[in-house]
Amino acid sequence: MFQAQATQTVNDLSPSRYVQHRDELVRAFRDVRQRTLTLTAPLSAEDMQLQSMPDASPGKWHLAHTTWFFEAFILQQHLPGFAWHEPAYARLYNSYYNAMGEQYPRPARGLLSRPSLDEVRHYRHAVEEAMAELLGTCADRVLAAIAPLLVLGINHEQQHQELILTDIKHAMYRNPTYPALFERPAAAGAGELRWLAVEGGVSHAGFDGGGFCFDNELPRHPVLLTDFHIANRPVNNAEWLEFMNDGAYREPLLWLSDGWSWRQENHVSAPLYWLRRDGDWQQFTLAGLQPLDLAAPVTHVSYYEADAYARWSGQRLPTEFEWEHAARSLGSPGPGADGAHCWEWTASPYMAYPGFRPASGNVGEYNGKFMINQMVLRGASRATAHGHSRPSYRNFFYPDARWQYSGLRLLRTDA
Amino acid sequence: MFQAQATQTVNDLSPSRYVQHRDELVRAFRDVRQRTLTLTAPLSAEDMQLQSMPDASPGKWHLAHTTWFFEAFILQQHLPGFAWHEPAYARLYNSYYNAMGEQYPRPARGLLSRPSLDEVRHYRHAVEEAMAELLGTCADRVLAAIAPLLVLGINHEQQHQELILTDIKHAMYRNPTYPALFERPAAAGAGELRWLAVEGGVSHAGFDGGGFCFDNELPRHPVLLTDFHIANRPVNNAEWLEFMNDGAYREPLLWLSDGWSWRQENHVSAPLYWLRRDGDWQQFTLAGLQPLDLAAPVTHVSYYEADAYARWSGQRLPTEFEWEHAARSLGSPGPGADGAHCWEWTASPYMAYPGFRPASGNVGEYNGKFMINQMVLRGASRATAHGHSRPSYRNFFYPDARWQYSGLRLLRTDA
Amino acid sequence: MFQAQATQTVNDLSPSRYVQHRDELVRAFRDVRQRTLTLTAPLSAEDMQLQSMPDASPGKWHLAHTTWFFEAFILQQHLPGFAWHEPAYARLYNSYYNAMGEQYPRPARGLLSRPSLDEVRHYRHAVEEAMAELLGTCADRVLAAIAPLLVLGINHEQQHQELILTDIKHAMYRNPTYPALFERPAAAGAGELRWLAVEGGVSHAGFDGGGFCFDNELPRHPVLLTDFHIANRPVNNAEWLEFMNDGAYREPLLWLSDGWSWRQENHVSAPLYWLRRDGDWQQFTLAGLQPLDLAAPVTHVSYYEADAYARWSGQRLPTEFEWEHAARSLGSPGPGADGAHCWEWTASPYMAYPGFRPASGNVGEYNGKFMINQMVLRGASRATAHGHSRPSYRNFFYPDARWQYSGLRLLRTDA
Amino acid sequence: MFQAQATQTVNDLSPSRYVQHRDELVRAFRDVRQRTLTLTAPLSAEDMQLQSMPDASPGKWHLAHTTWFFEAFILQQHLPGFAWHEPAYARLYNSYYNAMGEQYPRPARGLLSRPSLDEVRHYRHAVEEAMAELLGTCADRVLAAIAPLLVLGINHEQQHQELILTDIKHAMYRNPTYPALFERPAAAGAGELRWLAVEGGVSHAGFDGGGFCFDNELPRHPVLLTDFHIANRPVNNAEWLEFMNDGAYREPLLWLSDGWSWRQENHVSAPLYWLRRDGDWQQFTLAGLQPLDLAAPVTHVSYYEADAYARWSGQRLPTEFEWEHAARSLGSPGPGADGAHCWEWTASPYMAYPGFRPASGNVGEYNGKFMINQMVLRGASRATAHGHSRPSYRNFFYPDARWQYSGLRLLRTDA
Repeated sequence: MFQAQATQTVNDLSPSRYVQHRDELVRAFRDVRQRTLTLTAPLSAEDMQLQSMPDASPGKWHLAHTTWFFEAFILQQHLPGFAWHEPAYARLYNSYYNAMGEQYPRPARGLLSRPSLDEVRHYRHAVEEAMAELLGTCADRVLAAIAPLLVLGINHEQQHQELILTDIKHAMYRNPTYPALFERPAAAGAGELRWLAVEGGVSHAGFDGGGFCFDNELPRHPVLLTDFHIANRPVNNAEWLEFMNDGAYREPLLWLSDGWSWRQENHVSAPLYWLRRDGDWQQFTLAGLQPLDLAAPVTHVSYYEADAYARWSGQRLPTEFEWEHAARSLGSPGPGADGAHCWEWTASPYMAYPGFRPASGNVGEYNGKFMINQMVLRGASRATAHGHSRPSYRNFFYPDARWQYSGLRLLRTDA
Repeated sequence: MFQAQATQTVNDLSPSRYVQHRDELVRAFRDVRQRTLTLTAPLSAEDMQLQSMPDASPGKWHLAHTTWFFEAFILQQHLPGFAWHEPAYARLYNSYYNAMGEQYPRPARGLLSRPSLDEVRHYRHAVEEAMAELLGTCADRVLAAIAPLLVLGINHEQQHQELILTDIKHAMYRNPTYPALFERPAAAGAGELRWLAVEGGVSHAGFDGGGFCFDNELPRHPVLLTDFHIANRPVNNAEWLEFMNDGAYREPLLWLSDGWSWRQENHVSAPLYWLRRDGDWQQFTLAGLQPLDLAAPVTHVSYYEADAYARWSGQRLPTEFEWEHAARSLGSPGPGADGAHCWEWTASPYMAYPGFRPASGNVGEYNGKFMINQMVLRGASRATAHGHSRPSYRNFFYPDARWQYSGLRLLRTDA
Repeated sequence: MFQAQATQTVNDLSPSRYVQHRDELVRAFRDVRQRTLTLTAPLSAEDMQLQSMPDASPGKWHLAHTTWFFEAFILQQHLPGFAWHEPAYARLYNSYYNAMGEQYPRPARGLLSRPSLDEVRHYRHAVEEAMAELLGTCADRVLAAIAPLLVLGINHEQQHQELILTDIKHAMYRNPTYPALFERPAAAGAGELRWLAVEGGVSHAGFDGGGFCFDNELPRHPVLLTDFHIANRPVNNAEWLEFMNDGAYREPLLWLSDGWSWRQENHVSAPLYWLRRDGDWQQFTLAGLQPLDLAAPVTHVSYYEADAYARWSGQRLPTEFEWEHAARSLGSPGPGADGAHCWEWTASPYMAYPGFRPASGNVGEYNGKFMINQMVLRGASRATAHGHSRPSYRNFFYPDARWQYSGLRLLRTDA
Repeated sequence: MFQAQATQTVNDLSPSRYVQHRDELVRAFRDVRQRTLTLTAPLSAEDMQLQSMPDASPGKWHLAHTTWFFEAFILQQHLPGFAWHEPAYARLYNSYYNAMGEQYPRPARGLLSRPSLDEVRHYRHAVEEAMAELLGTCADRVLAAIAPLLVLGINHEQQHQELILTDIKHAMYRNPTYPALFERPAAAGAGELRWLAVEGGVSHAGFDGGGFCFDNELPRHPVLLTDFHIANRPVNNAEWLEFMNDGAYREPLLWLSDGWSWRQENHVSAPLYWLRRDGDWQQFTLAGLQPLDLAAPVTHVSYYEADAYARWSGQRLPTEFEWEHAARSLGSPGPGADGAHCWEWTASPYMAYPGFRPASGNVGEYNGKFMINQMVLRGASRATAHGHSRPSYRNFFYPDARWQYSGLRLLRTDA
């Protein structure tokens, strides 16, 4: 529903060939910047101000931070005569890069009524102009230095595009009028559950394409896998209702210990955004309250819930390596980036691959320092930009996180 | 600085004569409504969205709640063919009246991006039109029933006018760019400290005028007072600096036990909004960061700080009865409502006067249920609407509250 | 039930005559010290270690702190060649006297397994020996200086005797085996409710006897009272059940705003220690679980509950001045110290009397610094030492406190 | 220092041969039970009562819980005419087995003054008698069913022996007198740091002996490893001081993001139990305050600290598979269970091995449900019972835990 035209051909470019594709880089930059604005067009300045929890950020902040990324990591280093658009922004819109100086406290981002949305749009425009100037005029030698950061920034902005949607959804849910922000997308129910056989052995995990990937997808390395069967699609809402109706939310033996504590403290008895109205289940969506779509993948469940479901079903969650291997072996209708409907919790904690080295320079804080306490999700959701994900892509969240489009796919252990 | 033309002559009307002054009531209603809009004119929709702590509310919410007050307590009861402007507002903008049904959770008021500021202004306008129609056409008998609630609503809106200012100030302080919302008012330093002798004896506390007062100012009742001397003005910033420079914030023996705990937990070492910059004290104001005005009354101190100051000075805080008695006996330049520069903490807990009865009907929750754990402040601040306060007026806040324009005046116990 | 022989004749002595009653002082000291041991005899070293909340202290700590009081305030000043029994105790057993140096953190008192109970008993003995030596041999001039602190220390220890009982009760309640520590006392139900007429006018509040009182009972000062009727006994459990059965715990309009929040957050629906078992109410007591005694005064209710009850009943709580005046005017069966069954919440916040001065010296922190956020209770409970309380006695606790033997007595406002 | 005679030959027995070694089983049971008493002999009933944080338990509770384990899992199922020693204990001393019914709340274990230590010792004795009777008289068929639970219970009790020491150490640290509970053990400094080469390839992780192991050590499975060098000993205190002196605790770029937040919130600037006294570092130990032993392994560091140290050193932590492979390949002086001085944090989250199945029956909750959010530690500490650990042994704690004897060993990635 939220997918722009595929401009992600830059992701397929080999970094060694960036300088030969200056125009495509410029176009991809423009497209991703435009898509962010298109995506947020239905949101008022007041909507863009909301922060409903420390983990989420206001839409306006996302607009500014993705701009800061280009200003701080590219313009600051490479633009002759660079000056900050506004010096205060260097701190306000730095998310978590300690190497780049102090950061405004994350839980208070919702208190920044100023700069206004108009000023932030002006900021975006100014940085885009400077970037266009730089990209259009710099020497190839300079472009070679800039281009990897540019492509990183484009992918970074796509990640924030998804966060804009999940964050505003979380905030809107607190509004008892349950506003609808977007048109309701066409239902996309999957068919019957089938088990797809995958052969094990020594597989290789990690990115192997010629184009762009994040540092956390590297180094590619061998892993040993046994044979397994994987579901052809994620668990859907109808199946989740069975789990609920079987009393699974009240049965501690189905849960991890931390999961059970979490469930009790938070009084969890259904996925986030599910509401019981007059005996029927409804689901809060970006298109407002809607009847629960039974055929659609269950989303907005925590790792704890996904794990309990798998235990209840007698199956288990795939590891990220099984998932990736299956995605490569099977292609569609096995797990795959495009066409997938949700991020899928895996049984793998988010840790460094053997020999991992963070990206060089100040962007080294991008991924590596989060390699603790989080679980890997694979796939992509309908809120993910087209072409953004891939089989080796590693998304990661804390096991109690539910505001993402997070679901699960089962792996059969008995056959 | 924030004072409108005096339209508060309605406060001087005897309730028994309301029906004879229909036009003045209508005019006062219009004026107070207009002043709220004038006051918030410099604030953007984003500014009006901010809630920086549970005790504070967004400006937009104040606009809507003061409107709800007229709709819920007057129109709902007395307008023929009444229908809620929007049924959801009945809950969204009910502050704390359990008799009026459920309330949207206070700490989440800042998450209501919708209704938008425009919608809230439209709401205000619609209720004003309905009120004008009702007030202009209703029978005297109906007006007699409405008028006391109308005058209460006018005074209620004035209270929220002050809260709009203190709440937005608190939120803006979180913005590291320290925005200036208003012009800086003229300095209004008071002169030398003098001690004014007041005779004690049996005094009467509580409202005794013919006009409007809140239920908590009644019943008027006798109190026994000894002779005392009271300062001719509140403690000023220069004096407060002496207190600080004497190490008083680090000396537990000067503090109440709860005050010392509060000070330690919150690392308090100066009034709220004071900032040390390059060795000089600055103060965040609605006009942005300003050099500390040494002659101005100290404000934004908690009761705990005020009490510690009084102990340090060898004097004490007046009780609310001493304050009221002095205000009546001395007039200016003793404590008085107009011309005062800050709310003044008294040594009196906010409790019911002997024989107190809450206002009848659903507005009975207005004051009475807060008569615990709070301290009385007397006077008025520069943010208080002209004509709103009076010698018997009782403001009240928790002893740790600092975001109001709260200061103190000393009473001499030794002479 | 926990009352020793009356040794409190020292409280009746005029301080000016202390030196003439050296023997009685010594005897009173010995008696109060012995009673503490007698009271704690049924408690094991493990029982004496328990601290179930920050507001409560282990029995062992009470034993040591009451000893420290004599050591720190008397021996340290007046014993020739004084040395601390054990220097570490100076900090461990200092409760809250900043003038006496640092204090071990209150919430961690339960972590002091060492010194052992035996060592603390040895400490008690050693200080008692030193005190006996000092009291027996010092010059009259010295005795005159010591005696007021001695009598204060005796009364201080009596206060801790009651706390030992209420604190251990609170801790034992956490034990699902509901241990019984003492024999069950004889039931002491009061009779029918009657209203006693009390004449108002100028009354005098505060201590006026010739003997001992706390600093907070002074200065005696005139107060103006209207006529009233006061109940001949506290509200009993049968009456409280009516309140509960009428749904009063679910009706917000009966509650103070802070009280209602407290009730909801803590899921309060009955007095502390009440348990519903097989359809019957039981009450946890120092004699274990017992059937609810309907005729006994309700105890272990917070001020919030007492206030709600009074509102529900159409009456109100007396102020501390009304209570004291009635106690003096009526004697028994009106409110009175001995023969009372519970501490009775009054409508009065605990504040300084006009002209109050804390006791001189380091014991000045005893009472005065707590004069904020607490409410006055008058009377005495069955756990109060005989002769300890009096009509002017002011007990005080936070309005949410329930672990004391706190109940209420009604005052009629309509007749 | 806390090691008993090696009675752990039962751990070497193949389960299929348990019935042929009835006497050894009985002896091992007696030995482990006796060692628990020996270990706690220096602790008073008051010491045994302490609980200084929810993660720790009182010594007395450990005594009872380890007894409950045998009573609940063995006697209850297999003793003819079984009756609970005391029915209340079934709940009081159930740690976390939901399949066995309700549990007394963990954070309140320190409030159980009753049962007394004497009663708990009596409980221990009674269960030991019943166990002896059962073990001595039951048919081989019954013994075959009991023996695996018996051996599990023996190992379970050994785990609690270590927890008794770490928990009491944590509690004693809160006592400002820093009590010494045990004799100071002989210093056991290791020598110079050397790097031991280990060849990679397909290794097998998991238990492969014939005797006892926990379910989480299974199934044994192949893992792919590259060649590496591992340190011959853990990092010692002298090396940790270099890390501190280099400012590493103040440099966010050395830390995981969660680690940095943890460090800031908890003001961590040295390992737990380190104290600076007059310019020298001291360390609180079970033998009281001691000068820091520079040659000894650093202990009481969190995973966050261990990870930061590794990053600072330019090396990294081993995975649990590298650690296990090295332990098997090298034997001493490489990592090994006996002779090791601390538990060593690995880079591996504690997750299920491929094909993991929890132990059957109600002991299935023993390990599996904790497989989230924790990190694996390998090795053993001086507080671990002799013979308890082994190369495949998996200890696990949350990454912020510091009260265990947790240190680290480095792995070289560059050579």
